[in-house]
Amino acid sequence: MNIEIIRTPSELRARAFALRAGGERIGLVPTMGALHEGHLSLLRIARPLCDMLIMSIFVNPTQFGVGEDLESYPRNEESDLAQAEKCGVDIAFCPSPEAMYPSGYQTALTLPTLAAPLCGAKRPGHFDGVATVVSKLWNAALPHVAVFGEKDFQQLAILRQLSLDLDFGIEVLGGPIIREEDGLALSSRNVYLSQEERAQAPRLRQGLLAAEQRYSEGATDAVALLSAARAIIDAAPLARIEYLQLRNATSLAEVQEVTAPTLLAVAARFGGTRLIDNLVLHPCPPQA
Amino acid sequence: MNIEIIRTPSELRARAFALRAGGERIGLVPTMGALHEGHLSLLRIARPLCDMLIMSIFVNPTQFGVGEDLESYPRNEESDLAQAEKCGVDIAFCPSPEAMYPSGYQTALTLPTLAAPLCGAKRPGHFDGVATVVSKLWNAALPHVAVFGEKDFQQLAILRQLSLDLDFGIEVLGGPIIREEDGLALSSRNVYLSQEERAQAPRLRQGLLAAEQRYSEGATDAVALLSAARAIIDAAPLARIEYLQLRNATSLAEVQEVTAPTLLAVAARFGGTRLIDNLVLHPCPPQA
Repeated sequence: MNIEIIRTPSELRARAFALRAGGERIGLVPTMGALHEGHLSLLRIARPLCDMLIMSIFVNPTQFGVGEDLESYPRNEESDLAQAEKCGVDIAFCPSPEAMYPSGYQTALTLPTLAAPLCGAKRPGHFDGVATVVSKLWNAALPHVAVFGEKDFQQLAILRQLSLDLDFGIEVLGGPIIREEDGLALSSRNVYLSQEERAQAPRLRQGLLAAEQRYSEGATDAVALLSAARAIIDAAPLARIEYLQLRNATSLAEVQEVTAPTLLAVAARFGGTRLIDNLVLHPCPPQA
Repeated sequence: MNIEIIRTPSELRARAFALRAGGERIGLVPTMGALHEGHLSLLRIARPLCDMLIMSIFVNPTQFGVGEDLESYPRNEESDLAQAEKCGVDIAFCPSPEAMYPSGYQTALTLPTLAAPLCGAKRPGHFDGVATVVSKLWNAALPHVAVFGEKDFQQLAILRQLSLDLDFGIEVLGGPIIREEDGLALSSRNVYLSQEERAQAPRLRQGLLAAEQRYSEGATDAVALLSAARAIIDAAPLARIEYLQLRNATSLAEVQEVTAPTLLAVAARFGGTRLIDNLVLHPCPPQA
């Protein structure tokens, strides 16, 4: 394998300063490994935007809550590295938990407004953990551009704000959601689904599309749009909706009526597995 | 004036990357302006350690609590810049509050263990504000070395940990406390003292020295050492002690007996003015 593997933040930071000194443009795609086509699509977006493409693999303990799937989260570094190399990754940053959070570690970041609703309300501390680890990754990799998936839309909004707030000066890009043929958004957690759950999981996407359809037909109020989505999702007997909401796509403030780009986001449990999906409604509805 | 003045974080970060690309070593001394000999001593420590010396002047609103002296805090940029130039500062970073915290800003940092005791207990949110603004200054100036005063001992401990925790890779140095002839630690807030308060303020230092004297005579338990200090300070009728404590100099954990380097720290109010001072007791007492 030709991919370069770095395992400590200080080594990566030294390497990144040297790259920048040589005029190289650095791209970063942070992942928790268990790569699927969604991650690979982010690598393909980042590849032409930089000279040196860094991918991180780190299952970050601080973004998992008590009773979440930290221990069981799928890990396969060897296969991840092989796939990353095929997508043109130059450097894989694969630190141990001890390299990232040595004894005495205590710093935490929070973006209280953007982290409050949606997944933040259901997973207390999750986005603090994300913002904290991404700050560390950004300080270590010093990227010019960083790419994150739009499936984690709230995370993307938080990280854009983080780059501004702490003067990282990083261009934070979102990559479109990649889906199975039946519409289910790719996720490393899809492997947890039973056959029956897997069969019903595409209902999330279908619900969002039903709302989008209502919107294209002229409905703009939240009640009408959300009930169109809810009717479809509730028809899946194994789906338990955690939230289904319309939010301003930038501020994540709750929206009663679509007048600006608006996030339609859903989280639902299928058995023990929590899935999320979303789409953005644009203020100029597509013409029929 | 030859000193270069930069007023936005993004300009400073671009400049800092260019300096690093040119192989220059960057030193940073963050200040809130109102420079006195204490600040100048930090500049003199930093100057030979770097090629390019950056000093920031920013009265950071997020580290002031409700009812504290944000509005009245002394400001005199012109005189500060003249003094900085004399000490060899190359770049002064003087951002506006709006440049540092534009509309929508929301990120906050916290180091909960180190920030809990001492000043942190009396000034809720203060060290969160310090850690946040210093992260921004570090991301903007990309220093190799940063120097802070030992008068703010807890701040120094927090910022050393912050550099480790978020992989800034910065060498964080402390500069010794600079004092008036009568022992009062220099502080921009000393100007608030009435003549009578000013006359009694050196009691803080005298109290700490009394404890140090007891320690050199063989006393090692907290009760004996603290009561020696308290007796001297309480003899100043205008002094109201906020805290007077012995803490491990690294972890800031409370100490019952001096067996490792130990911080003896005091905060007291003289009228409306809050003063702090400290010294470190070393485990091998000086021989009589």
